[in-house]
Amino acid sequence: MRQGMAEVVFGKGKTPAQIAAIASSIARHSPNVLITRATTEAYEAVRAEISDAIFHTASGAITIAREVRETSQGTVLVISAGTSDIPVAEEAWVTAQIMGSRIDHVYDVGVAGLHRILSERERLQSARVVIVVAGMEGALPSVVGGLVPAPVIAVPTSIGYGASFGGLAALLGMLNSCSPNVTVVNIDNGFGAGFVAALINRGDTPGK
Amino acid sequence: MRQGMAEVVFGKGKTPAQIAAIASSIARHSPNVLITRATTEAYEAVRAEISDAIFHTASGAITIAREVRETSQGTVLVISAGTSDIPVAEEAWVTAQIMGSRIDHVYDVGVAGLHRILSERERLQSARVVIVVAGMEGALPSVVGGLVPAPVIAVPTSIGYGASFGGLAALLGMLNSCSPNVTVVNIDNGFGAGFVAALINRGDTPGK
Amino acid sequence: MRQGMAEVVFGKGKTPAQIAAIASSIARHSPNVLITRATTEAYEAVRAEISDAIFHTASGAITIAREVRETSQGTVLVISAGTSDIPVAEEAWVTAQIMGSRIDHVYDVGVAGLHRILSERERLQSARVVIVVAGMEGALPSVVGGLVPAPVIAVPTSIGYGASFGGLAALLGMLNSCSPNVTVVNIDNGFGAGFVAALINRGDTPGK
Amino acid sequence: MRQGMAEVVFGKGKTPAQIAAIASSIARHSPNVLITRATTEAYEAVRAEISDAIFHTASGAITIAREVRETSQGTVLVISAGTSDIPVAEEAWVTAQIMGSRIDHVYDVGVAGLHRILSERERLQSARVVIVVAGMEGALPSVVGGLVPAPVIAVPTSIGYGASFGGLAALLGMLNSCSPNVTVVNIDNGFGAGFVAALINRGDTPGK
Amino acid sequence: MRQGMAEVVFGKGKTPAQIAAIASSIARHSPNVLITRATTEAYEAVRAEISDAIFHTASGAITIAREVRETSQGTVLVISAGTSDIPVAEEAWVTAQIMGSRIDHVYDVGVAGLHRILSERERLQSARVVIVVAGMEGALPSVVGGLVPAPVIAVPTSIGYGASFGGLAALLGMLNSCSPNVTVVNIDNGFGAGFVAALINRGDTPGK
Amino acid sequence: MRQGMAEVVFGKGKTPAQIAAIASSIARHSPNVLITRATTEAYEAVRAEISDAIFHTASGAITIAREVRETSQGTVLVISAGTSDIPVAEEAWVTAQIMGSRIDHVYDVGVAGLHRILSERERLQSARVVIVVAGMEGALPSVVGGLVPAPVIAVPTSIGYGASFGGLAALLGMLNSCSPNVTVVNIDNGFGAGFVAALINRGDTPGK
Amino acid sequence: MRQGMAEVVFGKGKTPAQIAAIASSIARHSPNVLITRATTEAYEAVRAEISDAIFHTASGAITIAREVRETSQGTVLVISAGTSDIPVAEEAWVTAQIMGSRIDHVYDVGVAGLHRILSERERLQSARVVIVVAGMEGALPSVVGGLVPAPVIAVPTSIGYGASFGGLAALLGMLNSCSPNVTVVNIDNGFGAGFVAALINRGDTPGK
Amino acid sequence: MRQGMAEVVFGKGKTPAQIAAIASSIARHSPNVLITRATTEAYEAVRAEISDAIFHTASGAITIAREVRETSQGTVLVISAGTSDIPVAEEAWVTAQIMGSRIDHVYDVGVAGLHRILSERERLQSARVVIVVAGMEGALPSVVGGLVPAPVIAVPTSIGYGASFGGLAALLGMLNSCSPNVTVVNIDNGFGAGFVAALINRGDTPGK
Repeated sequence: MRQGMAEVVFGKGKTPAQIAAIASSIARHSPNVLITRATTEAYEAVRAEISDAIFHTASGAITIAREVRETSQGTVLVISAGTSDIPVAEEAWVTAQIMGSRIDHVYDVGVAGLHRILSERERLQSARVVIVVAGMEGALPSVVGGLVPAPVIAVPTSIGYGASFGGLAALLGMLNSCSPNVTVVNIDNGFGAGFVAALINRGDTPGK
Repeated sequence: MRQGMAEVVFGKGKTPAQIAAIASSIARHSPNVLITRATTEAYEAVRAEISDAIFHTASGAITIAREVRETSQGTVLVISAGTSDIPVAEEAWVTAQIMGSRIDHVYDVGVAGLHRILSERERLQSARVVIVVAGMEGALPSVVGGLVPAPVIAVPTSIGYGASFGGLAALLGMLNSCSPNVTVVNIDNGFGAGFVAALINRGDTPGK
Repeated sequence: MRQGMAEVVFGKGKTPAQIAAIASSIARHSPNVLITRATTEAYEAVRAEISDAIFHTASGAITIAREVRETSQGTVLVISAGTSDIPVAEEAWVTAQIMGSRIDHVYDVGVAGLHRILSERERLQSARVVIVVAGMEGALPSVVGGLVPAPVIAVPTSIGYGASFGGLAALLGMLNSCSPNVTVVNIDNGFGAGFVAALINRGDTPGK
Repeated sequence: MRQGMAEVVFGKGKTPAQIAAIASSIARHSPNVLITRATTEAYEAVRAEISDAIFHTASGAITIAREVRETSQGTVLVISAGTSDIPVAEEAWVTAQIMGSRIDHVYDVGVAGLHRILSERERLQSARVVIVVAGMEGALPSVVGGLVPAPVIAVPTSIGYGASFGGLAALLGMLNSCSPNVTVVNIDNGFGAGFVAALINRGDTPGK
Repeated sequence: MRQGMAEVVFGKGKTPAQIAAIASSIARHSPNVLITRATTEAYEAVRAEISDAIFHTASGAITIAREVRETSQGTVLVISAGTSDIPVAEEAWVTAQIMGSRIDHVYDVGVAGLHRILSERERLQSARVVIVVAGMEGALPSVVGGLVPAPVIAVPTSIGYGASFGGLAALLGMLNSCSPNVTVVNIDNGFGAGFVAALINRGDTPGK
Repeated sequence: MRQGMAEVVFGKGKTPAQIAAIASSIARHSPNVLITRATTEAYEAVRAEISDAIFHTASGAITIAREVRETSQGTVLVISAGTSDIPVAEEAWVTAQIMGSRIDHVYDVGVAGLHRILSERERLQSARVVIVVAGMEGALPSVVGGLVPAPVIAVPTSIGYGASFGGLAALLGMLNSCSPNVTVVNIDNGFGAGFVAALINRGDTPGK
Repeated sequence: MRQGMAEVVFGKGKTPAQIAAIASSIARHSPNVLITRATTEAYEAVRAEISDAIFHTASGAITIAREVRETSQGTVLVISAGTSDIPVAEEAWVTAQIMGSRIDHVYDVGVAGLHRILSERERLQSARVVIVVAGMEGALPSVVGGLVPAPVIAVPTSIGYGASFGGLAALLGMLNSCSPNVTVVNIDNGFGAGFVAALINRGDTPGK
Repeated sequence: MRQGMAEVVFGKGKTPAQIAAIASSIARHSPNVLITRATTEAYEAVRAEISDAIFHTASGAITIAREVRETSQGTVLVISAGTSDIPVAEEAWVTAQIMGSRIDHVYDVGVAGLHRILSERERLQSARVVIVVAGMEGALPSVVGGLVPAPVIAVPTSIGYGASFGGLAALLGMLNSCSPNVTVVNIDNGFGAGFVAALINRGDTPGK
């Protein structure tokens, strides 16, 4: 991945042995590596070769972070709605962090309980970028969008049942948000949200 | 309509002359009549025969209300999100009113501007039933559902563009609401919402 | 759950140990607890700690009901179409009951055999709220809606095959009901239906 | 149309002059002609040439029926739900009639008012084939299917709004009917329903 | 099932023991029983109690046929497109047969190999009703519809992959058939097709 | 258009004056020009400047063909199902022709009347490429695919009503064709079909 | 709009008189005003009152820009695929510009002609944010995403026909982009894209 | 399969024993056999009987190729986007090869990394037919279509997650391609693409 400040390996569909081999090979020349959607077995295989690899159990992300440099004074804030949305939220902040962003997160704030989110208003308003992860009706990005002056990246999750249609309801809700500062990524795409948030947070024209 | 306390005529697709004829005929034996989705021309035709008919211009509802009796101490509160949702909201409260409910409404409260809805919290919490009318992402019922102890009837509207798919996004959002006190009616069905709200508000077992 | 008169735990996706721990913790300060979608194993774990917990085998609901007070003279009647709809129907009445409603149910009444439902007409008409649970074409709420003066909450189920599309056919049928007293909740959402029915049945403005 | 006992012209998208020309040409060699979906103008053009042509105003069907022979003792009964469904219902019985069937119809029987349909039970049960035309939730064929021993042909109509999606809700409802004697044709396809009903009603193996 | 000439048990979702118990109970008073979608184990359980029960292995239908009377001189012909469509085709003819119809079947005739179907033209044209079972593009009913003077009941199957969307492509194709003698049942609904075919084949007004 | 042997202008959404100006400009340096979806007015404007421009009235295509060289001995055969499919069929053969293909067409052959297509079998089998244009159920390409040894390009059209969903039924049918020699282009895309057919027909590796 | 640096009026559905009145009222206290989707008539009405209002004819945007301050050294680059996408592209850059961003645009670069986009590579790589506007298959954002180190905001447009389904194909394509720096807004939502781009481009934590 | 130059067996859903039996039987009279989607076990069973059978592990294709004659000087080039697309790509070239085509392939070229595909430009431009296999947004065929003068057959794959909806996003993207030389086959249909490519590549009118 040319654009990032870390090499990324998509772990899904690869065996622990394959992941360990790729990780070892990359880690030789690249100080920072992110492996997404790995299993505990894959992590064991990686750690046998790279002792400082860290496992993020909710999302299955493995990070090797040796030379992460903070590229900005700003913070990427990750907000998630329900307990089941945490894996996607974790993938988002792990990604933003290894790409050089200072990160923060607020979990379990739903639109049916506004007091939780209102009590965090100050933290929300000081973020440079906000990632909002939500399933079901996907209403949280609109509410957060109205509370913050920053860009909001909305991540629909496949959490829900019946007429949630695997995340479609949340996706459509986010695309139709009445808050104009909201953009959207694919269902369950925590990695993409964290990646873009880090790019936004860098605060300079990266191509220069 | 056997169940209601007013006779209802669906005005859509009928000519002014047809509407006036039906209204005159019904008004002879029924003190309360509701005509939905009528045009100004239809209203003129009705008023030529029934001088106390009232026209509700946003929704196109015509009411003849001679013997409306309040059936309960409770209030049906109608909340709507955007200016374009007002026609549906008006249809809802006109229906609830002619069926004997005390009504109230709060317009133009969107989820991207929570201060508006939070400042009305007291009015919200004292309602017996709340009707929430919203298009786009359809997030308002979830937010309202979290603020009130009453049942919430959500009405998706066809307001929006692109991926709103004629109200589908709002409909799915409402069906997936994380507030458990929310039920849903068809897109733009202000009449149905007002009708059920009035039934709930009656506060007794009507069949007895 | 702020609004209810019982604490609710969503059992789905939690281990028996987790459910037992949460249930014990809640039961210390709350006399009434409802756990939805639990397994037999989860129930065994709960009962080991709370001997008066009851298991409802069709729906997987566990209830601890120590201080349920009837809040109204009215009855919540749950009607279901086919044998496969019973789990959702049971979740609905268990929920309404623990929230303080007197409940009743009529099972196995389909629209293709009207004599069954017509023979129950009296029970239907004396209910304060009716919940109708149906899969396949979802026609039962319209038929029931025409027979009762009360509000009807329709619950589509994912029962069916082929063009039922996991409950979508039933959902659309219910949203397009020609009976104006019908509102709809998400596919298989027996809990939501029971919850709203209990709110309607309370018969007063709860916020007061 | 090789199979039928009348020649059929699909009028939609043809000019009055084209329709009149085709009709004249066919009428020279064929005693029975059916033209579907014609306008009043098209009818005037046809009648100028064929004085015994009959116009069916609801459906826009034009018939020239000079030698229609009843092919069976059985009756094709057409039932429709709402006033807006009548054009499709009329197209169905006009088609069945010109193909040699004795026909009957019952209009304005909805599932929300069962007394209407129950009061016609005898007429229903004596039909050889029943066509049921309905929009909105499309529940009527299931109810009728349970009342009659005959095959039921269900015709969904595009009547409805919002989540009716142009007749899709009714179509899905009918395909998922719990009455096993129901088959379905395309949305608004009154002609197809009438055609098949007449084939069923003939009561013999036509190929022999 | 009031309408049929055999009692029907839907086997899906029932245990072998349940099926055997129900079958025994019904067989005591009813000479003809059809059990659909049963497993080999269920059949063993049934046969242990009812020695003359027959198992149809492709469809999983079990029949107990002691007093099947042919109700008509006509034949129900079942045509299927591919090998994978045979289970649904078998369910169709087993159903029609136990309800008193003489049946015939032609398997493995696809629209990409017209010679097969054209060589069976005579058998096709002598049928009183034709059932056509097909997955993928669902084109066979249109082709057959053009070859026979009889009513055609089209059964889409869930056979296919990718853009077949579980039978949706075949279903839509059949609903849009250019042959006017085609009606459609739900995806994989061989039972429904066989049931209606038998009703059509009876050749009299059954209510009389 | 780099690849073709004619310059192409998409006429849709352009005024007659704009089309005439672009056509004049291109015709100065390019001997062969194709303008798609033009109106009669646009043609008049073009002919005022380019007297040898030809108008194809069914499709609205305008061609200026001064140096069309036949690039192959093979023929592109265009087959269409119904009268309403002719505009798309014409767009296909006009495109193939101006790109240097010998073309042929067979109109009005539907799958419900196989004799028509079977009587053209020889012409079909001698084509180098076959384009099949069909709406409704889109079954014709499968039937043709089984009759010819050549590649078949299927063009679904938006012709139909109800569950044809603007050509979606035909599109899905063609994508699921059981004939392995069928590929598909977008709904109503006669131009694309003609373009690819001409590329196939050239019979050599064009890049060489 | 609390977040922006200009007041925004959504012109769609408002009369020229209404727009002029709102614009005058806002312009009294706010130096920068953006009116979206206005007609020429609306612009005339506005200019009669506010002589320095500017009309952007492709998008129908009206701007009153008296005190726009550049908030960053970075540039927002707007890229669009086809001529028909220009209205949405213009809405995007007009919005970004009035919110204080330096803007640039590259029109008419499609993925079928890579030379165009490759020749602009330097301009692309120096942008702080890139907005990509495209209809049809929506492939351009992925290609651009691979060429630039900046965040890319993808705007699907409703341009296309047949299986584009009003922009759905482009929307899905963009959500599934293989470039990880892409986020998406609603179909035709040029305003939203420009708004977020300006927020990203500000380069500081705005809440501070 | 009458059209091909090899006999084809669809392996999916057949047991190893069945596949081995069919293969042996066919191989007696046909020198070239292709078995698609077979397992390793099926291959072992086939090789026990036919020692020169070859297994293609990515796609599961088994080939027996004894008399494959190259039918043309042209090349079928198969291009695929991601590692997960290789099984479908392999099925495509194995099919084209056994039908007599010279084949070539280029794997792992995505639209987000244009340098890879641009560096293969010469190989691309010398192909007689190009097959492009891609999941996710399905943009690769459009990019390739713009680079080559040959016909392009696009194969969407079911690779992706969330809003890829099992390959639907890629399918729609390909159908809406802005490159006019692109046609499309069903999701994951590598066999169909290879089959048609070989027909195109034969370079003569096969029926002659």
